[in-house]
Amino acid sequence: MTTAPWRDPALPAAARVDDLLTRMTLEEKTAQLYGVWVGAATDGDGVAPLQREMTADYDWDELITLGLGQLTRSFGTAPVDPALGARALARAQRRITAAGRFGIPAIAHEECLAGFTAWQATAYPVPLAWGAAFDPPLVEELGRHIGHDLRSVGVHQGLAPVLDVVRDPRWGRVEETIGEDPYLVGTVGAAYVRGLESAGVIATLKHFAGYASSTGARNLAPVRAGVREFADVTLPPFEMALREGGARSVMAAYNETDGVPASADPRLLTELLRTDWDFDGTVVADYFGIGFLQTLHRVAGTEAEAARLALAAGIDVELPTLKCYGRPLVAAVREGAIPESLVDRAARRVLLQKCELGLLDEDWTPEPAREGPIDLDSTANRALARRLAEESVVLLDNPDGALPLAPETRIAVVGPRAADALAMLGCYSFPSHVLTHHPEVDLGIAIPTVLDSLRAELPDAKVTFAEGCDVSDPDTSGFEEAVARAAEADVCVAVLGDRAGLFGRGTSGEGCDVTDLELPGVQAGLLDALLTTGVPVVLVLLTGRPYALGRWHGRLGAVVQAFFPGEEGGPAVAGVLSGRVNPSGRLPVSVPRVPGGQPWTYLQPPLGLAGEVSNLDPTPLYPFGHGRSYTSFAWEPTSPPSAEIGTDGSHDVTLTVRNTGERPGTEVVQLYLHDPVASVTRPDVRLIGYQRVTLAPGESRSLTFRFHADLSAFTDREGARVVEPGALELRLATSSAAVRHTVRLRLTGPVRTLGSDRVLRCGTKVS
Amino acid sequence: MTTAPWRDPALPAAARVDDLLTRMTLEEKTAQLYGVWVGAATDGDGVAPLQREMTADYDWDELITLGLGQLTRSFGTAPVDPALGARALARAQRRITAAGRFGIPAIAHEECLAGFTAWQATAYPVPLAWGAAFDPPLVEELGRHIGHDLRSVGVHQGLAPVLDVVRDPRWGRVEETIGEDPYLVGTVGAAYVRGLESAGVIATLKHFAGYASSTGARNLAPVRAGVREFADVTLPPFEMALREGGARSVMAAYNETDGVPASADPRLLTELLRTDWDFDGTVVADYFGIGFLQTLHRVAGTEAEAARLALAAGIDVELPTLKCYGRPLVAAVREGAIPESLVDRAARRVLLQKCELGLLDEDWTPEPAREGPIDLDSTANRALARRLAEESVVLLDNPDGALPLAPETRIAVVGPRAADALAMLGCYSFPSHVLTHHPEVDLGIAIPTVLDSLRAELPDAKVTFAEGCDVSDPDTSGFEEAVARAAEADVCVAVLGDRAGLFGRGTSGEGCDVTDLELPGVQAGLLDALLTTGVPVVLVLLTGRPYALGRWHGRLGAVVQAFFPGEEGGPAVAGVLSGRVNPSGRLPVSVPRVPGGQPWTYLQPPLGLAGEVSNLDPTPLYPFGHGRSYTSFAWEPTSPPSAEIGTDGSHDVTLTVRNTGERPGTEVVQLYLHDPVASVTRPDVRLIGYQRVTLAPGESRSLTFRFHADLSAFTDREGARVVEPGALELRLATSSAAVRHTVRLRLTGPVRTLGSDRVLRCGTKVS
Repeated sequence: MTTAPWRDPALPAAARVDDLLTRMTLEEKTAQLYGVWVGAATDGDGVAPLQREMTADYDWDELITLGLGQLTRSFGTAPVDPALGARALARAQRRITAAGRFGIPAIAHEECLAGFTAWQATAYPVPLAWGAAFDPPLVEELGRHIGHDLRSVGVHQGLAPVLDVVRDPRWGRVEETIGEDPYLVGTVGAAYVRGLESAGVIATLKHFAGYASSTGARNLAPVRAGVREFADVTLPPFEMALREGGARSVMAAYNETDGVPASADPRLLTELLRTDWDFDGTVVADYFGIGFLQTLHRVAGTEAEAARLALAAGIDVELPTLKCYGRPLVAAVREGAIPESLVDRAARRVLLQKCELGLLDEDWTPEPAREGPIDLDSTANRALARRLAEESVVLLDNPDGALPLAPETRIAVVGPRAADALAMLGCYSFPSHVLTHHPEVDLGIAIPTVLDSLRAELPDAKVTFAEGCDVSDPDTSGFEEAVARAAEADVCVAVLGDRAGLFGRGTSGEGCDVTDLELPGVQAGLLDALLTTGVPVVLVLLTGRPYALGRWHGRLGAVVQAFFPGEEGGPAVAGVLSGRVNPSGRLPVSVPRVPGGQPWTYLQPPLGLAGEVSNLDPTPLYPFGHGRSYTSFAWEPTSPPSAEIGTDGSHDVTLTVRNTGERPGTEVVQLYLHDPVASVTRPDVRLIGYQRVTLAPGESRSLTFRFHADLSAFTDREGARVVEPGALELRLATSSAAVRHTVRLRLTGPVRTLGSDRVLRCGTKVS
Repeated sequence: MTTAPWRDPALPAAARVDDLLTRMTLEEKTAQLYGVWVGAATDGDGVAPLQREMTADYDWDELITLGLGQLTRSFGTAPVDPALGARALARAQRRITAAGRFGIPAIAHEECLAGFTAWQATAYPVPLAWGAAFDPPLVEELGRHIGHDLRSVGVHQGLAPVLDVVRDPRWGRVEETIGEDPYLVGTVGAAYVRGLESAGVIATLKHFAGYASSTGARNLAPVRAGVREFADVTLPPFEMALREGGARSVMAAYNETDGVPASADPRLLTELLRTDWDFDGTVVADYFGIGFLQTLHRVAGTEAEAARLALAAGIDVELPTLKCYGRPLVAAVREGAIPESLVDRAARRVLLQKCELGLLDEDWTPEPAREGPIDLDSTANRALARRLAEESVVLLDNPDGALPLAPETRIAVVGPRAADALAMLGCYSFPSHVLTHHPEVDLGIAIPTVLDSLRAELPDAKVTFAEGCDVSDPDTSGFEEAVARAAEADVCVAVLGDRAGLFGRGTSGEGCDVTDLELPGVQAGLLDALLTTGVPVVLVLLTGRPYALGRWHGRLGAVVQAFFPGEEGGPAVAGVLSGRVNPSGRLPVSVPRVPGGQPWTYLQPPLGLAGEVSNLDPTPLYPFGHGRSYTSFAWEPTSPPSAEIGTDGSHDVTLTVRNTGERPGTEVVQLYLHDPVASVTRPDVRLIGYQRVTLAPGESRSLTFRFHADLSAFTDREGARVVEPGALELRLATSSAAVRHTVRLRLTGPVRTLGSDRVLRCGTKVS
C-alpha cells in the first residue's frame, strides 16, 4: 500500500492539501472549520466538551468521526494541573485522530493576552504596561517565553496580541491594548508576534478591526469612523504585525464600523487582508462572532445566512465552538445557497496551517517535545515578569522629591488595592478570568501585594495599613481609620485603582466599561480625606485605564501609575517607591484632567486641541509619552537643524543623551512628526520613533533616528497612501507635549503614492 | 442710449448675468463674492464697517467702487431702532449702487435662528422647541412671520435654519437644532424654509454638513463619521429642505469629517449638492470659515490657497467679510494659481440670485415695500410665539397628578431660572447674542418670567420666591432660604436650567459645550436639598439641551421640560402648570439617566442598545418622542395587522384616536420603522411619520399614514440607496420606546435602487 500524496512530507504543502480536499466529504471539510470548546479533565482523562448558549447540540463521539478543526481552551476554562492538562489534551487528540478517516488532529488554541491563561502559569504585566515600557525587544522575549510554555503542553495557537488602538479610554478593554498610538501598538505588538511565532506558536492578531472605537466606549457598540481614520489609525498595527511580525492568524472583530460588521466584511477580511496584504494564514472568528451576525447585528436572518456572510467575507474558522459552521453550513451548501468553493477555500487554509505545523504527518504525536518537566511559572519567567513590570511603572509626578521613600520612615499604606494580590492582574489573567468561578482553588502562582513588597523592600520602615474602602462599594466607613493611620505617619502611600473582571464583575476588563474617568467607587473621596491630614500623600495607581487626576493636581507628594503589572508587580512598584528601581515607564495613554469630555486621545488635528471655539480644554494633565525619572538627562542634537530630502528620501537625526544625575537611569527618547500643511487634516503630532537608553551617571550615548519620507505618509482624499512634498518638523521630545529639539525638514519632488508594502517601515535604529 | 442687456427685465436671468459678467473686471466679479460686516448707525446714517481679527484691511469708500456681494448683519451687530436701521441700510445700499460702475446693491443678510436677531424683534422659541412641537405647519407660519419682518427692513437673506442632527447632546449648539432624528429635523426644517421663502427671503441651510457630530461634543472638533452615517443621518434634512422647502442658499460647515473640511470638499459642495441634488442657489461660507482652512484646519498654507480650496469646492461667498476672497484671490487669479472660471462660476450664481431678487433692475429701490410702520414684535408675532411655546412644553412625568396646580395653594417658586427673563432665550436671541455687550440697553421686548407668569396665572395662589443659587456659580449659601420657602409651601416649583451665551459665557450655546449632562453649577444640589423637605417638588427645566435626570427619578412631583421657549415662554410654562394649557410637546432628544456615557441618541442598531456585552445600559430615562398629557387617548387600529407590498409599493396604515379623558388635548401619533434584517446594520427603530391631533373630550379622529417603501431605504455597502425586500414592522407609538400597534409588512420583489430624487418623500398624510 502506497502512502497517499497528502501524507507525503516530500510533497509541497499545497499539493498535499489539494489531494486531501479531493478525498474529503463536505462534512469532513466543514469539520475543519470549527472548534469545540472543551475543558481538560483534572485527572488527565481527556477533555470535556462544554455546552453553552450559542452552541449547537452535538454528540462528541459522533462529531469527531468527521475530524475537528480546533480544540478551544482545554487549559483556559477551568483550573487544571498543567502536566495533567497536557496529558488530557494529548488523549483528546488521540481520540480525534482515531475517530476520523484521516487521523488529523485539531489545532489547540488558548488565550495568552498577558501570559498563558492557565492555572499556575506566569501572569505577566498587561499589554498596556508593555506600551508603557516602550521596549519591543523585551516584549519579543516575553512572546518567546509564552510561546515556549504553550508549546510545552501541546498548544498550537495563541489568541494574542490585541492590536486595537485606544480611541476612548472609558472602554473596559483598554487594559488589553498597548495604548493610543498606532506606531507604539504596531512596534510593540509586532515584537510580541515575533516572540510567539519564534516558539512555533501561531499568533492571532485581534480584533480585526475597529473594535476599540465603539461609540460611548460601550463594549461592541457601533463604531463611527471614516475610512481615513480606519486606514491611518486602526489598521497600521495589524499591517506591521503581519509584515514585521509574521503572524499567521487574524481574528475578525465583533464590531461593526459605519454599519458593516467586520465579521461580514469581504473588503476587510479578503480584499485588504489577502489581496492587498498578501496574508495567507487563517482568519478565525471571535467567540460566537458568527452567530452574532444573526442575533446582535441582524444582518443575517438565519444561522445559515450568518455562515454564508462570514464564510464569504473570509472567516475560515468558527470559534469557540460549532454553531453556524456546523449543520447549517452543510445544509446550505447542499441546497446550493452557499457555494462549496467557499468551504474549500477555508478548509484549504486550515489544512495548510495544519500541514505547516506537522499535523498531517504520519509521525505526528500528540506529546510535544520538551526538555524537563512542565513548569509554566519558571524562575526565568518570573525574572522576565519582574523586568517588564519594573520598566512599565510610570512616575507621573514627584514635584518635591517625596520619592524615593527614606529607608527608615513611618509609612501609612492605605487603599483597597494595597493588599490584594488580584490588584496586579488584568481580566485575561487566569485568576481574574477563571478562578472567580472556583473560589476553592488557590491562585496557583505567588503574587506579592504592594503592601507585602513594600515591607520587604523597606525592612527598617514602620509600615501600617488600612484599606479605607472597597474598589467599587460605596461604603465610606473605613475612611476614618485610614485617615488616622495617615495622620500618624510621615508619608501616606495610597494604593488605589481597578479590580479587573469580566462583564460587569470588575471596574476594568471586557464588558466593564465606564461612563466617565472618575476613580471607581469612593476612592476619590478617600484620597480627598487623606489629603486633609497634611501628611504627604504618594498616590499609587494600579489600573487598567487612565483616570482623571486634575482634581488633585499640585496637592500630591508623588504620583505613580502602574497598569496591572502582573505577578511581580508588587516588588516592581515597591522598588520604584524605595528607589531601588529608577522609573523608566512612559504613558501609552493620556491622563486627563476631568472625568468627562471623552473620547479624547493625543492624535488630534488642531481643532481637536484646546482653542477659542469651545470653552472645553481637552489638554491632558499628563500627556502621552510622559514619565519622570529619579535622574536627569541632557540631550544634545548632533545633526543639523534643517535639511531637504526628496519625497522618497531619508534623513538621519542624531543626538547624544547624557545622564546628568546621580543615579543610573533610563531615558525614552521619542520622535514625533508635525506636518504643518497637508491636503487633509493631520494630527498635530504623532509618534514615529522611540528609543530606550540606559545610562550610568555621567555616561552618554549617541542615538540615531532614521527618518524615511514614507513615515510621513497618510491616506489622501482618493484613498491612496501618499507622501506630499512640503515642510515637516521632526520633534525630539520627552513626551508628545514636551519637545526638546526640532529638525525642520523640507520634502521636495512630486507627491509620491506608496504601494501597500512601503509605508510602515520602522524609523528607529540604534547606533 | 439703449439699455444694456443685463438691465433688460425682458431677457432671461441667465442671459442678463452672462452679459454682465462680460462687462465686469476680475476685481468687480470678485467683489460680488464677499460680504462686509457692518453695523447700522443708530441715527440711520448708513452702516459702519467693523474691523476685526480675520478681516482684511480695506478702505470702505474705495472698496465699494467695485460693487459688493453682501452686507453682513447691519441689524444684528448692535442695538439699533428698527426704523432707523432700515433707513441706515437703505442709505448704505444707495452708496454702494452709486459707487460702483453697475449700481448693483448688496444682498443684506441677518441671523434668524429663532426670530430676527435684531433689537425689539420677537424672540421665538428655539429650534429644539420647534422639534418638541412636532408641528411643521406652525413652524412654516413662523418662517413666514420672520421672513415678513426681515423683508420689511430691507433684508434679503436669513442665515437659518440649522439642520444639524443632534449626535452628542453635550454640544453647546444643541439648542439651535431641531433634535436627534433626521426625519423630524427635515420635516420641521423644510417647513421653516417654506415659510421664510414664501416671504421672499432666501433661507440658508446650515451647517452643511456634519457639524453636530464633533468628537467629544467640543465645538468644531473633528467629526468621526463614516459615509453611511453621513448619508443616512446627516444629509437627509438638507435634501428635504432643498426639495420640499425650496431653500436658495446653503452654508458650508466649519467642521471636518474624517480629515476633510466641509468648506474644502468639492464632493460635498459640488458633486452632491449641485450634480446629484440639482441645487442652483448660492453656497456661502460660515463666518471666517474660509480663513479657518488655513488657520484652524491647516489644509492651506496661505490665504490664497484657502481661497482656491474653498472656491474650487464650491463656496461662492465669503462671510462675514472679506479676507481670502479679496486681494489674495485676485492676485492668485492674476498669477494663474486659480482659474478665473472659478470666479465666474461663483459670480454667476451670486448675480443670478440678485437678478431673481430684482437687484439688477433699473427700478430697484432700497426701501422695501411695506404696509404700515415697522413693527418687529407685533401682536400677531407674540400670539404665534405663544402658541409655539405652548405646543413645545413637554410634560415628562406627573406620576401622582401634582400638576395642574390647584388655584389656591401655597407655591414656593425656587431656582435661578424662575425670575430671569433671559432664561427664556437661546444664544442667537438678540439679548443673549448682542445685548450682553450693551448692558445699558433694555431688552427691547417684554419677556415675562415664569415667576411673573405664574403669579398672573394663579392670582389666588400664595407664591413665594427664592433663587437658591446661580445657574453656574458654585455658591450654595442660598440653599437655606430656598429650602425654608419650600418647607412652608404646599408645593415647590423648582425652575432650573441653562443660561444661553456664546463662547463660554453661557452654559448652553455656541462654544458652550459640556463634559457631561449634569445640571449646571450647583443646581443638582439645590434640587437634592429641596427634596429633603418632603414637600412635593415640581421640576421645571428651561434648558438648551437634555440633562440627566435619573438621580431624581421617582422622587419628583412632576417634571416639565421646556427648551428656551422664547418671549412668551413664561406664560406658556405657567399655563401648563396651571392646567390652562394641556401639554402636548414631545421630546426631540432623549433624556438620559446618568450624566456620563455620551454620545448617545436613540438611532441605534441593536448593539447600541442595552445588552449583555457591556455593563453600561444607555437606555434613556425619557425616550425620544415621549411626552404626557392631562387627558388620555385611546388608539384603535383600523387597517389590517399585516400586509404585503412590492419594494416600490405603498401601504396605508389607519387608526382612530379618541380623547378618553375630561379635557381637550393633543396627541402626537408617531410612526416608527423597524427593519428586522438588512444587509447593513439598521437602527432598531426610526421615525418615519407623525401627526398632531387635537381632540375635545370624547372626540375621535381617523388618521392615515401612507407608508411608501422608499421610506425604508438606506445606503447599502456600495453607497447606493436601496429598498430591500423582506419583513418590516411599522410601529404606531407614543414614543420611540412605547409601541401601541404594530403592522407587519412584507416587501416583495427585487432590491430597488433609488434615484436621489425619490427617497425622502414624507409619509404623513392627514385624512
